[in-house]
Amino acid sequence: MIENKFPGKDITSDDLKDKFPLVAKKSPDHKSKFSICGIEFGGDKIPVFAGPNMVESKELIEDIALNVKKYGASFLRGGAFKPLSFPYRSKKYNETREEGINWLNYVKDKIKIPIITEVMEEKYISFIAETADILQIGSRNMQNYPFLTACAKTGKPIMLKRHYGSSLRDWLGAAEYILVEGNKNVLLCERGVVAPHTHRSTSRFLLDLQVLPAAKEITHLPIVVDPSHATFWRPWVSSMSLASVAAGADGIMLEVHKDPDNAAVDPLQPIDYFDFNKLMKSMDLVAKSIGRSIF
Amino acid sequence: MIENKFPGKDITSDDLKDKFPLVAKKSPDHKSKFSICGIEFGGDKIPVFAGPNMVESKELIEDIALNVKKYGASFLRGGAFKPLSFPYRSKKYNETREEGINWLNYVKDKIKIPIITEVMEEKYISFIAETADILQIGSRNMQNYPFLTACAKTGKPIMLKRHYGSSLRDWLGAAEYILVEGNKNVLLCERGVVAPHTHRSTSRFLLDLQVLPAAKEITHLPIVVDPSHATFWRPWVSSMSLASVAAGADGIMLEVHKDPDNAAVDPLQPIDYFDFNKLMKSMDLVAKSIGRSIF
Amino acid sequence: MIENKFPGKDITSDDLKDKFPLVAKKSPDHKSKFSICGIEFGGDKIPVFAGPNMVESKELIEDIALNVKKYGASFLRGGAFKPLSFPYRSKKYNETREEGINWLNYVKDKIKIPIITEVMEEKYISFIAETADILQIGSRNMQNYPFLTACAKTGKPIMLKRHYGSSLRDWLGAAEYILVEGNKNVLLCERGVVAPHTHRSTSRFLLDLQVLPAAKEITHLPIVVDPSHATFWRPWVSSMSLASVAAGADGIMLEVHKDPDNAAVDPLQPIDYFDFNKLMKSMDLVAKSIGRSIF
Amino acid sequence: MIENKFPGKDITSDDLKDKFPLVAKKSPDHKSKFSICGIEFGGDKIPVFAGPNMVESKELIEDIALNVKKYGASFLRGGAFKPLSFPYRSKKYNETREEGINWLNYVKDKIKIPIITEVMEEKYISFIAETADILQIGSRNMQNYPFLTACAKTGKPIMLKRHYGSSLRDWLGAAEYILVEGNKNVLLCERGVVAPHTHRSTSRFLLDLQVLPAAKEITHLPIVVDPSHATFWRPWVSSMSLASVAAGADGIMLEVHKDPDNAAVDPLQPIDYFDFNKLMKSMDLVAKSIGRSIF
Repeated sequence: MIENKFPGKDITSDDLKDKFPLVAKKSPDHKSKFSICGIEFGGDKIPVFAGPNMVESKELIEDIALNVKKYGASFLRGGAFKPLSFPYRSKKYNETREEGINWLNYVKDKIKIPIITEVMEEKYISFIAETADILQIGSRNMQNYPFLTACAKTGKPIMLKRHYGSSLRDWLGAAEYILVEGNKNVLLCERGVVAPHTHRSTSRFLLDLQVLPAAKEITHLPIVVDPSHATFWRPWVSSMSLASVAAGADGIMLEVHKDPDNAAVDPLQPIDYFDFNKLMKSMDLVAKSIGRSIF
Repeated sequence: MIENKFPGKDITSDDLKDKFPLVAKKSPDHKSKFSICGIEFGGDKIPVFAGPNMVESKELIEDIALNVKKYGASFLRGGAFKPLSFPYRSKKYNETREEGINWLNYVKDKIKIPIITEVMEEKYISFIAETADILQIGSRNMQNYPFLTACAKTGKPIMLKRHYGSSLRDWLGAAEYILVEGNKNVLLCERGVVAPHTHRSTSRFLLDLQVLPAAKEITHLPIVVDPSHATFWRPWVSSMSLASVAAGADGIMLEVHKDPDNAAVDPLQPIDYFDFNKLMKSMDLVAKSIGRSIF
Repeated sequence: MIENKFPGKDITSDDLKDKFPLVAKKSPDHKSKFSICGIEFGGDKIPVFAGPNMVESKELIEDIALNVKKYGASFLRGGAFKPLSFPYRSKKYNETREEGINWLNYVKDKIKIPIITEVMEEKYISFIAETADILQIGSRNMQNYPFLTACAKTGKPIMLKRHYGSSLRDWLGAAEYILVEGNKNVLLCERGVVAPHTHRSTSRFLLDLQVLPAAKEITHLPIVVDPSHATFWRPWVSSMSLASVAAGADGIMLEVHKDPDNAAVDPLQPIDYFDFNKLMKSMDLVAKSIGRSIF
Repeated sequence: MIENKFPGKDITSDDLKDKFPLVAKKSPDHKSKFSICGIEFGGDKIPVFAGPNMVESKELIEDIALNVKKYGASFLRGGAFKPLSFPYRSKKYNETREEGINWLNYVKDKIKIPIITEVMEEKYISFIAETADILQIGSRNMQNYPFLTACAKTGKPIMLKRHYGSSLRDWLGAAEYILVEGNKNVLLCERGVVAPHTHRSTSRFLLDLQVLPAAKEITHLPIVVDPSHATFWRPWVSSMSLASVAAGADGIMLEVHKDPDNAAVDPLQPIDYFDFNKLMKSMDLVAKSIGRSIF
C-alpha cells in the first residue's frame, strides 16, 4: 500500500485502504497491463478508439470502420443505445438500438475490428456483450452502482467514463464497484468536466488533463482520454489529442465521421478521415517523443 | 407557449417547444398544482419532508417520524436503498434495503405520515412503490433515462433531484422523460451544485438558489430545495432553509435525526428535534412574510 | 479566539490566529457594529444601497437619488469611475469620472443622502473620499493589496467586494489588509461567483448565499449582498434579494434606474422605481420575520 | 478581420471588431512574432522562463540563474514584489522588494540572462523596468486597468497572466488595454482556473489547456503556460509541461529552486535542477515532434 505523502489531497491514505483498495496502487510503480482482443493496454502502445458518435446506418458504419482501421485505430467506437437528453426523437437524431448493434456485429466480422459501444440498461447488457469487446459505461451512469455491478459480472472489459461533475475520489469509488466483482479489465476515461469558462457557450466541458498525473498517483488502471466530447468543437480536437498523449493518456477516443457536417449527432465535434489520418501520425510522433507509440 | 424574451439564455424558445413542451409553462403565470396524500404542492403552502438520511432501525425511524410529524413535517423522508460511493459496507454505514422499506411501511401505518424514499433500481420500483407516496430519484440517477421512464410508469408522484453537475436545461429534459409517460405529479429538487468554492473542503456543493427564479421562468413544476445535502454542515442549514423559502421554494427537504452526531451516514448535516421545531417556526414566519405558509 | 471545530474546512484555526486575527471573531457571538452617517451596520436594521450602475448625468442621478431615498434607501450608489472590460468608450457607455463625482456631491447636499461609490486608482482616492461616505472596492481590485492599504489609510468606511473567483479565505485575507491599518469600518460584499451553470450564457455569476453562514462562522464583519450584479437579470433580483435578507445579509445593494431599458450600462439588471418600492416593502416583511427590519 | 464562424461562442465577431480589434487576428494564419533580448516569441522556438517563486537572497538567485541558464532557460523568473494573500510577513515568507530587484540586476549582468519579474504598483514600475526585460502582470492585477495602461506606457514587453476566474473574453479585453497604448510585445499566460475538482484541496486551480486552441482562434498573440502555479504540486509539473507544449504553448514558465522543500514560498511546487534538466530535454523532444523546439 502506498503512503499518502501528498498533503492537502482530498484522497487520504485511509481511502486507499478502505474505499478503493483494488483500484489503488500497491507500490509507486504499480501499473495494470492487460490485453483486449490482442491489444495491450497500460503498456507503451496507446490504442485509439475511433468512429462516429451514433451508429447511423450499416453502410456508413462499414465505411467508417474501414477507414479508421486503415489509419490505425485499434477499436471501432459507435453508439447504438445512446443517452439522449430529451425524450423526443427525430428521423435523423435517433438511436438505432438492436439494429445498430447488429450492424456493429456485421462490421466487426467483415472488417475485423474490435468494438467498443455504450450499454445503458441492464436488460440489454447480455445482448450488447455478444458484440462489444469493451462495454462503455457513459458518464451519466458512472454512479449507477447496481448497473456497474451488472456490467462487471459479464466479465467483459469495461471502460468507465468520468462524470463531468465527479471528483477523482468518486470516480475511483465507482471503478471499485467493478473490480470488487473480480473484473480486472477496467479502463478509466476522462471526457471533460463542468467548469466556469470553456469559451464556447454551447460547450459545457473543460478537458481535465491534470487528472492524468493526479489519478496515476493513486491508481494502477489505464486512463483513456476523449478530447472530442470534452471540446465539442472540431478545430480543438487535434491540439487536445496531442496534449492528452503528452500528459500520459493510455488510450485516445475520437469521433470520426465520413461527413462530419452531416453527422446525426453533435456535428460540430467529429473529424473526417483525412484529418484523422493526419492526427494519428502527429499523435504517434508525440507518443514516440515520450517513449511510447500509437502504431 | 411563452416567448423566449430572455437574451443570452442557454434555453431557447425552440427548446420550450421541441425539447420539453410538457415541462414548459404555457403562459407566464402557469403553475402546476397537485395533491399528494391530501397535501397540496404548487400552492401557498410549502410542505416539508423531514427525517434521517438512512433508515437505520425500526425504533429510530419510528421515533423520528413521531417527532417530525409533531413539529409539522408533511412527509417522512429516509433512505433504505442508498447510493453509497464505495462498494464496502460497515455495520453502521450500511443500507437496510427491504427491511428498511418494511420499517417505513410500519411507521407510515402507525404514525400516519406519508413517505418519500429513494428508488435506485428498476427491479425494486414496484416493491418500494407499495410503501412510498413519492418516489425520490437521486441526483446520480437524474440522467438514467430508462429508469426515469420505469418510475414514471408506476403513476406514483416523483421527486427528481438535480444532478450536481447538471444545467437547468438537462434537468428539465430529464423531467420531460417522466411527463411524457403521462405522469404529471413531478417535483423538481435542487440540492447543490459543484462550484469552485464552498469553504469546506469536505463539502463539494453550493446551494444554487438562483435556479429557483431561473426555473420558474421556464417551467410550471413545483421546486423543492434540500439545504441539508447542499451545505453538508448543520450550522448552515437554518439560514439556507430560510433563504430557500424566501427565494420561492415550493417544498423543503431536511435531514432530521434523534442523535445527529451518531447518525449512520453524514453525521455533520442532520439537525435534532429541538432545532427542527425552531426552524419550522422560523420558516413559517418567513413564508408568511411572502404570503405563503409552512403549517 | 474561537476554536476551529469545523472538520474539513479550508480555513484552519491557525488562519484565524496568524492570517486574519483582526477579521476573525473573538468569540462565537462577536459581531461588529458601527455607524456610517448615523446609519448602523451589523445590528437589526439592514441598510439598502440603491442607485444606477453608472452616474450618467446630473439630472438623472438627482432623480434617482430622490426616488430611492423616498422609498427607503439609506445610501445612494452610483459609479463615476468604472472598470470597463475593454478600452473603448462609446458616447453612451462611458465613465463620467470627476464630473460624475461632482454630480454625486451636488446630489448628496441637495437630497441629503449619503454616497457609496467605487474607487479604482490610488491617485483619485482623496478626491473621491471628499464626496464618498463609503469607498467601494470592486471585485477586480480585491487583491490589489497596495491599493487596499491606500484606501484604508483614508480612515473612510470601506466596502470590499468579493472577487468572483475568490475563496472565503482570500476574501478575509484582503479585508485584513484594511483592518491592519486601523480602519475598522469594513463591510464585506458578496456579488456572485463563477460557477459552471447559471442558465444564462451572458451571465457568468451565481449568487453564493451559502457564504453568509460560512463567513459568519469566522468573521465579525457585516456582510452586504448585491443581487443585481450576481443575477445580471432583472426578473431574478426580487427573489434573490428576499433570499439574501433571509440568509442573514447585513445590507443589500441594488441597481435602480429611472428607465432601466435605457441604462447606459448593463440594462438587463436594474429595476425601476415602482419595483424598488415594492421590493423594499417585501424585504422589510422578510426582515421582520427574522427579527430585523429594512426601514 | 476573421469571421465568427463558430456558433455558440461567447466571443462574437462584433467583439473582434469593437472590443479587441488589436488583439484579434486579421486573418486565420495571423501570428505575432517579436524578439525580446534576441529571443523570438511566436515562432518555432518555445522559450522557457525558469527560476524561484521568490527572489530570496543574492546567493540563491545567482545559483539558480546559473543553473537554469545552463540547462537552457531563456529567461530568469523570480518575484521580488509579491502579492501575498495576508498582510503579515514572517522572516522566511517575505518580499525582498528593492533589494530583490537589485539582486536580479546583479545576476542579469553577471550571468547574462534576461529577467522577467512581477510589477504590482504603479510607483515601482519605472524602477523595476530598469532591470526587467519583461514586466509580468500577475493574475490578481489582470483587470486593474489603470495599472495595465501605466505598464504599457513603459514600452517594455509585458506578460499578462490570466486571472483564475477570468473568461477568455475578459483576458483578451485586458490585453487590448496594453496594445491600445502602442505596446505590441504582449505575451498572454495561462496559469490555471478555478474549477470544482482539482483533487488536492490545497490547490484551487485546474490548468486550462483547452484555452490554447480557443485563444489561437481569436488572437495573434503568443501564449505562455505556467504549469507550476496551476498544479501547485511538483509531481504533476512534468506531465503538464509536456502537455502544454503539445497543446501549442509558445512559452513555458517553470518554478525551479535549488532546494525545493525549503523554498520560502509554496515549497510544494518548484522542481530542482536535476528534474529541470530532464524536463527541458523531454519538452524539447515533444516540441520537435510537432515541428518546434525548446533549445
